Amino acid sequence: MRKFILDLDTGIDDTLAIAYALGSPEAELIGITATYGNVTMSQGIRNDLAITDLFGHAEVPVYAGLPHATNKNTFEVLEGSRLIHGKNGIGDVTIPDSPRCQEASSAIDFIINSAHKYGKDLTYVATGPLTNIAAAVKQDPSIKEIMGGIVIMGGALTVTGNVAPWREANISQDPEAANALFTSGAQCTMVGLDVTLQTLLTTNETKQWRALGTPAAAFLSDMTDYYIHAYELTSPGLGGCGLHDPLAVAVAVDPTLVKTLDVNLKVETDGATRGRTIGDKDRLNDATKTTQVAIKVDVERFLDEFMTRTSLVVSEQQ
Amino acid sequence: MRKFILDLDTGIDDTLAIAYALGSPEAELIGITATYGNVTMSQGIRNDLAITDLFGHAEVPVYAGLPHATNKNTFEVLEGSRLIHGKNGIGDVTIPDSPRCQEASSAIDFIINSAHKYGKDLTYVATGPLTNIAAAVKQDPSIKEIMGGIVIMGGALTVTGNVAPWREANISQDPEAANALFTSGAQCTMVGLDVTLQTLLTTNETKQWRALGTPAAAFLSDMTDYYIHAYELTSPGLGGCGLHDPLAVAVAVDPTLVKTLDVNLKVETDGATRGRTIGDKDRLNDATKTTQVAIKVDVERFLDEFMTRTSLVVSEQQ
Repeated sequence: MRKFILDLDTGIDDTLAIAYALGSPEAELIGITATYGNVTMSQGIRNDLAITDLFGHAEVPVYAGLPHATNKNTFEVLEGSRLIHGKNGIGDVTIPDSPRCQEASSAIDFIINSAHKYGKDLTYVATGPLTNIAAAVKQDPSIKEIMGGIVIMGGALTVTGNVAPWREANISQDPEAANALFTSGAQCTMVGLDVTLQTLLTTNETKQWRALGTPAAAFLSDMTDYYIHAYELTSPGLGGCGLHDPLAVAVAVDPTLVKTLDVNLKVETDGATRGRTIGDKDRLNDATKTTQVAIKVDVERFLDEFMTRTSLVVSEQQ
Repeated sequence: MRKFILDLDTGIDDTLAIAYALGSPEAELIGITATYGNVTMSQGIRNDLAITDLFGHAEVPVYAGLPHATNKNTFEVLEGSRLIHGKNGIGDVTIPDSPRCQEASSAIDFIINSAHKYGKDLTYVATGPLTNIAAAVKQDPSIKEIMGGIVIMGGALTVTGNVAPWREANISQDPEAANALFTSGAQCTMVGLDVTLQTLLTTNETKQWRALGTPAAAFLSDMTDYYIHAYELTSPGLGGCGLHDPLAVAVAVDPTLVKTLDVNLKVETDGATRGRTIGDKDRLNDATKTTQVAIKVDVERFLDEFMTRTSLVVSEQQ
């Protein structure tokens, strides 16, 4: 079975990504590496442990990553993140703390060791800033060729961003890390706003979860209702909440859900458009392209898979 | 036979676009509408008349368009345009003035009348600012549905621009006109830097023209050598000059030369990224998409067609 590492800043849609991974029989979630973004890294770790417990998967270890951007010394949660994910990152819904703790070893070491251990059977999915994977590739460049795949939720190539017209939130947190990864030679799949704003969830679906009658299902529906409500305030007219992070996991499980464009991507780190994901003109005519950017998505099939897999996870907990 | 109107700011690659159209047996060039950009509109008209004469096609009428951007009162040639196209727009190569004059009727009226006359048999190709077509669509919105197709050379969706990282030269001249066209509901094909910087010409090809031994062939090779030299100065490392405008004509003749992405495009007209072509998030989930953005090109087949068709035109003039 394919091994998955999820790198998360958990986060409502990160929680949905965990549910999608745990509900995928093709994937074994061997660990979560924690990052900052929607919440602080320590809040993210707390959430990862509590959520995997609630979903009946206390076997999933959680590793602490780097707590701030490559070129910074601190991190503070943005007001916009708090608005969308709630103060605790999971829509201000209360779930029990886990009795477990984060692992003693670091996220970076776990990524590198897993790459060497599992090789092409390992898929790494990042749904926050790319600080951890950039650091891992910097520390051990050999993992670029060894690993089976890197899928990221982040960026916006063919649509405007969500932080500024040219900037998506995850890339925006650490443009240097993202640019280092995209220009490292590592093969990456980018699942950005181009497709994630097409995969929308509404209260019709959260009602289906709630009807399952388990505590985990109640948590998932309450938390996601918070998210949908936040989207009504911040993106009126969109018609639901974007399933950003779970789509990245879904694409890692089944790449045929999207059509991709091969691009040698870069992230602008200077000037007015800092944080923009865009094709690098200097590598436009290189025969090898290192990033596959998702530009179309089979919305209906993904939503079906999403509801089937997440419902499976929260039904099991009765 | 399909009828073609070329809207040009002639310009070296506009000249190559004229040659491509005249060398295409599938297309009848029923008129050139003049715009500003690489040169002033009056210089462009002078060039269009002289070039069609030199190519043995004095039957092609030339119409004067709007001489400046929608929201401006004047136009001045940018220093960068002079550097790339020469002071006279055709690489400072001297060719005889035409004895002909521009037509008495306007470009806007010619576009509208041709749309009504030829309907789906009419293809309009714009290789400069979109001022004329935006004005025509504003004056008679019915032509959006009547015309067979609109193909534009301009914009950059998946690569950085050539005027600024987020701005391509043609769109940059009149962002309001381009945005009006893209959001008008008219179906357009965008042939932008995404593909035109992949189709490069070198002095190997200009030597093939020169060997044809005609005055027209000598003009084409001298002019294009100027362009290639300018590219060496402005884009060192690219390995040739971009065949921007002729690729747009080629795609209008044979759409299978490119793969396209359906996008509801807009042009940002405010803020730091004014002039940027990007998918409109507010229309991301509309079932109908109005712009087909070329994102891949069959470079080899296009270059073959380009050399065959342009050589045919300049060979005939012995």
